[in-house]
Amino acid sequence: MTHNDSPLLSPDRCFGPDARQLSIARELYSQVAAMPLICPHGHVEPRALADPNYSFGSPVELIIMPDHYIYRMLYSKGVPLETLGISGHSGAPVEHDHRRIWQTFADHWHLFRATPTSLWLAYQLYIVFGIAEKFTPSSAQRIYDRIAECLTTPEFQPRALYQRFNIAVLATTDAATDTLEYHDALRVSGWPGQMIPTFRPDALLNIDTPNWRTHVAKLEQCVGFEVNNFNAFIRALEARRTAFKARGAVATDHAALTPYTEVLSASEVETLFQRALRNSATPTDAARFTGHMLVEMARMSVEDGLVMQLHAGSLRNHNVSLYQQFGPDRGADIPVAVEFTQNLRPLLNRFGSDPRLTLILFTLDESTYSRELAPLAGHYPAVRLGPPWWFLDSLNGMQRYFDQVIETAGLYNTAGFNDDTRAFLSIPARHDLWRRAAANWLAGLVARGVVDIYDAAEMMHDCAYRLALQAYRLPALSPQFR
Amino acid sequence: MTHNDSPLLSPDRCFGPDARQLSIARELYSQVAAMPLICPHGHVEPRALADPNYSFGSPVELIIMPDHYIYRMLYSKGVPLETLGISGHSGAPVEHDHRRIWQTFADHWHLFRATPTSLWLAYQLYIVFGIAEKFTPSSAQRIYDRIAECLTTPEFQPRALYQRFNIAVLATTDAATDTLEYHDALRVSGWPGQMIPTFRPDALLNIDTPNWRTHVAKLEQCVGFEVNNFNAFIRALEARRTAFKARGAVATDHAALTPYTEVLSASEVETLFQRALRNSATPTDAARFTGHMLVEMARMSVEDGLVMQLHAGSLRNHNVSLYQQFGPDRGADIPVAVEFTQNLRPLLNRFGSDPRLTLILFTLDESTYSRELAPLAGHYPAVRLGPPWWFLDSLNGMQRYFDQVIETAGLYNTAGFNDDTRAFLSIPARHDLWRRAAANWLAGLVARGVVDIYDAAEMMHDCAYRLALQAYRLPALSPQFR
Amino acid sequence: MTHNDSPLLSPDRCFGPDARQLSIARELYSQVAAMPLICPHGHVEPRALADPNYSFGSPVELIIMPDHYIYRMLYSKGVPLETLGISGHSGAPVEHDHRRIWQTFADHWHLFRATPTSLWLAYQLYIVFGIAEKFTPSSAQRIYDRIAECLTTPEFQPRALYQRFNIAVLATTDAATDTLEYHDALRVSGWPGQMIPTFRPDALLNIDTPNWRTHVAKLEQCVGFEVNNFNAFIRALEARRTAFKARGAVATDHAALTPYTEVLSASEVETLFQRALRNSATPTDAARFTGHMLVEMARMSVEDGLVMQLHAGSLRNHNVSLYQQFGPDRGADIPVAVEFTQNLRPLLNRFGSDPRLTLILFTLDESTYSRELAPLAGHYPAVRLGPPWWFLDSLNGMQRYFDQVIETAGLYNTAGFNDDTRAFLSIPARHDLWRRAAANWLAGLVARGVVDIYDAAEMMHDCAYRLALQAYRLPALSPQFR
Repeated sequence: MTHNDSPLLSPDRCFGPDARQLSIARELYSQVAAMPLICPHGHVEPRALADPNYSFGSPVELIIMPDHYIYRMLYSKGVPLETLGISGHSGAPVEHDHRRIWQTFADHWHLFRATPTSLWLAYQLYIVFGIAEKFTPSSAQRIYDRIAECLTTPEFQPRALYQRFNIAVLATTDAATDTLEYHDALRVSGWPGQMIPTFRPDALLNIDTPNWRTHVAKLEQCVGFEVNNFNAFIRALEARRTAFKARGAVATDHAALTPYTEVLSASEVETLFQRALRNSATPTDAARFTGHMLVEMARMSVEDGLVMQLHAGSLRNHNVSLYQQFGPDRGADIPVAVEFTQNLRPLLNRFGSDPRLTLILFTLDESTYSRELAPLAGHYPAVRLGPPWWFLDSLNGMQRYFDQVIETAGLYNTAGFNDDTRAFLSIPARHDLWRRAAANWLAGLVARGVVDIYDAAEMMHDCAYRLALQAYRLPALSPQFR
Repeated sequence: MTHNDSPLLSPDRCFGPDARQLSIARELYSQVAAMPLICPHGHVEPRALADPNYSFGSPVELIIMPDHYIYRMLYSKGVPLETLGISGHSGAPVEHDHRRIWQTFADHWHLFRATPTSLWLAYQLYIVFGIAEKFTPSSAQRIYDRIAECLTTPEFQPRALYQRFNIAVLATTDAATDTLEYHDALRVSGWPGQMIPTFRPDALLNIDTPNWRTHVAKLEQCVGFEVNNFNAFIRALEARRTAFKARGAVATDHAALTPYTEVLSASEVETLFQRALRNSATPTDAARFTGHMLVEMARMSVEDGLVMQLHAGSLRNHNVSLYQQFGPDRGADIPVAVEFTQNLRPLLNRFGSDPRLTLILFTLDESTYSRELAPLAGHYPAVRLGPPWWFLDSLNGMQRYFDQVIETAGLYNTAGFNDDTRAFLSIPARHDLWRRAAANWLAGLVARGVVDIYDAAEMMHDCAYRLALQAYRLPALSPQFR
Repeated sequence: MTHNDSPLLSPDRCFGPDARQLSIARELYSQVAAMPLICPHGHVEPRALADPNYSFGSPVELIIMPDHYIYRMLYSKGVPLETLGISGHSGAPVEHDHRRIWQTFADHWHLFRATPTSLWLAYQLYIVFGIAEKFTPSSAQRIYDRIAECLTTPEFQPRALYQRFNIAVLATTDAATDTLEYHDALRVSGWPGQMIPTFRPDALLNIDTPNWRTHVAKLEQCVGFEVNNFNAFIRALEARRTAFKARGAVATDHAALTPYTEVLSASEVETLFQRALRNSATPTDAARFTGHMLVEMARMSVEDGLVMQLHAGSLRNHNVSLYQQFGPDRGADIPVAVEFTQNLRPLLNRFGSDPRLTLILFTLDESTYSRELAPLAGHYPAVRLGPPWWFLDSLNGMQRYFDQVIETAGLYNTAGFNDDTRAFLSIPARHDLWRRAAANWLAGLVARGVVDIYDAAEMMHDCAYRLALQAYRLPALSPQFR
């Protein structure tokens, strides 16, 4: 047994059954299984690493609470969120006993069969915690005990796990107006790991954000000057990017319902901005303003070298009453169809061929893989296609991605993997799944004579860490890790 | 040889070739191969079971005439529908000799290679009728003889086949204004099988239905009161639902070009309704009215417990002159792209979290599987995703469904299988294909270590019958069948 | 080793690894591997065959220059087109040393791993040129030598390769106003091969073509009468079709961003035409005019029997500055989502059931395969679905095509294969890939018991050449080739 084996998990999990392909997949996977994890995009709480006294809390706080995949599925089968410990505004009684919440989860565990959540949790239970019995309603409390016991030991504090998981770099995602105090604290602490912030200015770029003026006020506080015209707004954003970069940031991140871009004239954009300040912007104003700001963000990336990430197509908080009662990120964001070809054209015509820009695109609409994204990534020097995102970050999702993207985009216009998770303990599970899926894909290519084993070995290392390093302009790993 | 074997059909048909996966698929399939068939959605003629003297007629009437898949394919290669016995308004001579029609079909049988029709017909010929030679132009007349001979025997009357096929329950699809006389007749006949109606009010909910006023007049007849305002219309529909429910109905069914929903004010909807009564509704009026009525149907389902089915995205009668000459259901309905996320939001925000509602969604636009439908089913308690529909009810269609849906929706937010057929004899063939596809999918999961064999066995039973029972709120099978 | 083997290429390339399926695939493939190539749609330069002294030039002119797939990928990774020998308007220095261009290509060869370009080039190098070492940066110059040497020999002149490749017929694609001089020259030369033109009137049908009036002037020259009204325009197009047909043309070809069709009244279309002549047509005018002209083209096809091809959904020259500097066909065309069902309805309602029309549809939007195109091809007698086009002309693209199309359309509503290439030497490579992909697909059907080996053998021959012959109304192969 190597460091990521368990008698409850097949060492060949995720590999296809054909014996010849399987032996190639095993060989390729074994070459990268112990390589460091590159985590250039995710949602881990910065305090987890910055605070040396940080505790994950109970097994429920560790595993269930940061995971909207779990809330989503349980809610879909009628489990009230209150019984999972989430208090809303309904006044319904909230379960506070974490053992009971854990049992509710275990009682519904069958719902996750064949989902990535089941693979991720299996990895955490059987490998990270070394639990030797299957997670079932009847074993749930013993497993709770075991996790709780582990969490009291130094080996299960975040910094220790960071080392054990062999993480080389971990990016967080932070509002443009974040103070970055935890990042600062960690940097002065002398801890040798690397946690870097990511600049996410959505709340400022979307003038229809609830309480947008409050975010502008925060921005003014951060930069120390008044933001009462578009020019000041731009200068303030540039100042914040500089502050992020000084703390190690290599990227920005942008979420948009559509990737609409438009280059507005100076007077047009000033008009929209003034309307937003007066709270009188229309939805069309908001769409045009965001479209212009995405082009501005690309312009700034050209200048400061921050890699630009764009996550398009998620309609947030589809279930309005759930949002009103329980807030965002409870699993009620639903994708919509997305158009990239026409929408991104203004931005790409301005900056898509500039070698100083890297624009990484993410989609939840797989019909765009072969139709729009692979052709765009396969042409524009600036464009790379990000890994399968969110619902698509799964074994089949990855297979479809390799199948539909690479023949047109080429592997080297993609961005490797990122785990995109709030759940710290799922990080190695997610990378392991990606590396296995990649090994299986490559083994299929070798078995079918499409690439030879030497090229496949290079591609395996590219998938596992090199592409992520290159796409996010991170330094190469030191020689002992290559 | 078991009850569904034939020397002309591989006992391993539909299973992938890998030896290890194959042996698991065999094992899983064998556990459910003899389980009763649950048929909660279909188009079998009620008289077939209600009339003890019902005869299927000739082999042509049995196999070709109820099957628009067959008409469609033959028409596409230039075979005039008149030579298949269908009279239109063109005055062209119509073939009345069923042996000749059968021969025309056989002469074009190669067109169906690799289509589900070929698998369904093979099952009927080689297993249901026990025919021991391959269907070809030269064997066609001998096979015709054999089928015709069978059809004269009591073993091949509908009620006998219902027993032989081991059908547990068979739902028909019936206009809201149907008298349900055959259902009534069957219920009083003492026959032990179960045939139940399904409430399909499309002709009433779509005010742009040709002769909509005639349908309203029929509705008035059914309920015995005047329907001259929206309130009366609602009461009349509620009365019909009650009548259907009294005859065993568990579900309603709705077809729509788009799943657009909108909640109109009482005065708005009354205005639209009055315009419809005066024949002056615009296409926009019709779309908004239907959108409002879908929300009303969800509201009624919350109240009366009937499961709501929505089949969206088929543009009916695309070929106008064919429709004018030969009528509907000749294979000229063509799908369009469908948007569910935004369109269903008004309905789901009102009733999507209500445990009393079950809304089963069907699509012909596979790009919505991973993008919209699996996320919706994986969040809203009310939503389940129906099985692959129509053109997608095929071996590859099922594989894509399992591949693209389950990782996000979870198996338990799907609705099992339904055969959706007018062709009574194809019922066991279609269920067999589904069970084999499911067994093959599950075997793949086991072989790749994604689920273990114990979970896979549970999932096999879920796919084969439990999910359909649960989704349609049908009683569980009695113990000897589980 | 047979005629298309090399020690550097697996004889089983492109076949799945399962031993049973593999042996069936081998057997099926071997039945057609030596069959003549039918090339009913492509972009080979007519002069290559017409001019007996034609030389392919250097290895760079042979392999890189006609291939926008290569430019695209290198450009996407920051290689300036000037270093590939393309001069633009930027004034940047252009590389003229073909050995250096070749080396630049070789240095970036890893970018093409797992793309169809790598399979096509491997075939050319290792089979057509018989090169016995792997193409790498360090072998590049030796391989250049070997190719250059070959190209000086008579065996590597186009006509000799046409024979060696066993091409039965090769269609070129030609502007409606082309003089067809090379086709004429070839016909009188006594050379026994068959090169035929294809009528492509895009520049005339799209009134928003830059310099549309110039194209009309050319048309006037061709036909010898004035084209100052729509009626004359139609007569001129008919005359050109007649001229093409007289030179062996069997088809027309049309490119459109959308397949929008509309039947305009005589006065409406005349108005649009006059506006176009006055250079005052709006974008809407242009869309409606093209929509009407597609219906006119179908009408002419009904009358003259030319097969109508429609390639929809490519947004040409997405990268405007690249286009301005380097012109079209540099790999900057990006697909958009396409709607066929509603857009083609006017055309299909008029001519879709007419046995005299064959309309072959091509898409870059795979979401339309199962949703729109397979149902349309599976219903309308006139419609056939073309093979995977452009970005989709790849091993996985073909597998998805077989998987998503055939169950609904049936194999016999498809159009076989065409190579669609400017790169003469890639022709046998592309057909070989298609035949292998088809053999692998059919072997999968046999292994899963969906078709038997006898039917699969017929389908193999259909895929390899019969469907293309039928779809394009070409004469059957002489008996020794069947």
